[in-house]
Amino acid sequence: MTSFVVRSSRRTEAIEITDLVERACHQSGISEGLVLVFVPHTTAAVFVNERADPCVARDIMEVLSRLVPEDFPYSHQEGNAPSHVRATLLGASVTLPVRAGKLQLGTWQGIFLAEFDGPRERRVMVVPVEAPGRGP
Amino acid sequence: MTSFVVRSSRRTEAIEITDLVERACHQSGISEGLVLVFVPHTTAAVFVNERADPCVARDIMEVLSRLVPEDFPYSHQEGNAPSHVRATLLGASVTLPVRAGKLQLGTWQGIFLAEFDGPRERRVMVVPVEAPGRGP
Amino acid sequence: MTSFVVRSSRRTEAIEITDLVERACHQSGISEGLVLVFVPHTTAAVFVNERADPCVARDIMEVLSRLVPEDFPYSHQEGNAPSHVRATLLGASVTLPVRAGKLQLGTWQGIFLAEFDGPRERRVMVVPVEAPGRGP
Repeated sequence: MTSFVVRSSRRTEAIEITDLVERACHQSGISEGLVLVFVPHTTAAVFVNERADPCVARDIMEVLSRLVPEDFPYSHQEGNAPSHVRATLLGASVTLPVRAGKLQLGTWQGIFLAEFDGPRERRVMVVPVEAPGRGP
Repeated sequence: MTSFVVRSSRRTEAIEITDLVERACHQSGISEGLVLVFVPHTTAAVFVNERADPCVARDIMEVLSRLVPEDFPYSHQEGNAPSHVRATLLGASVTLPVRAGKLQLGTWQGIFLAEFDGPRERRVMVVPVEAPGRGP
Repeated sequence: MTSFVVRSSRRTEAIEITDLVERACHQSGISEGLVLVFVPHTTAAVFVNERADPCVARDIMEVLSRLVPEDFPYSHQEGNAPSHVRATLLGASVTLPVRAGKLQLGTWQGIFLAEFDGPRERRVMVVPVEAPGRGP
């Protein structure tokens, strides 16, 4: 298990972390199995979607802002209630296949940290789990 | 693999299960790896978010109720169609890191069962998976 | 790790893949642990919910279409921006318990591929991970 830190610079922002996760996988020595990518935060999330056009990640964040509005009769009184709800809709983790030591992402897929209450430092945990094969 | 039962007392309700999952992990003897928390139900879900202020979990449930309304032209005719959709938006499982035998949750994170069609008894399955280390 | 291909026939469609995942698990020889079901796509997703009444999966897809509308000021200019957002709200994977070589789904649960930009061929990856037990 390893982790790395990402610094966000805006309140709401999607930050691509594919290369950082790939490197953590490589350093772990995992060959075949899966990797869990987890954020130990309650106003940030992780998701997988298109990396080729950064507009896609922006659209995802924008739609979430509209779906979970700022003005709603929230009970939580710290001003960041919608950040908690948005993060929960995406989820605190993604789990990805690994084969021959490489993340098995699709051609267009990247991994993103979703910041909903920045700017902040966020930690991302990477847990590789080897799936013992049954020989060559 | 173990499981435990949670009893909900309202139609819609978030019930914290962090301590029950922690105990199941401990009893499994897992040292390092991950744990899957899964509900074998279609109108309940599991999510991870703030446990310090219970208002946050209530806000999450409340926003889901507004996003997925009662009055919509649903095809499923058993009266609980929105419960299915709400549960699907959160998901039937979460996966969490474990290190030195302890769940690696963030300071503010807790694990919640989301009940969308209670009151009922719900079962929660806990699957610890050891990630064989390469250490000493 | 194995994979199979599913062909969708409409733009938006939920296709049940429970039996295909069950077969992939069986063929892998996994006994106890978990299985990751992952789509390497950015406009398709995977979810778990009721299989008994196919109306439920249709309701899920229909609500997602209303929540993430076609007419929104999207940045991504390829005409399928809402497909990306809908797929992200469901997620690219599910993780499921396995015991005695069988998927531990609840009575009503099935696994679905969610197509948001079809018709297309989609690949589904299945990664079984044995959780070494501590003996009988």
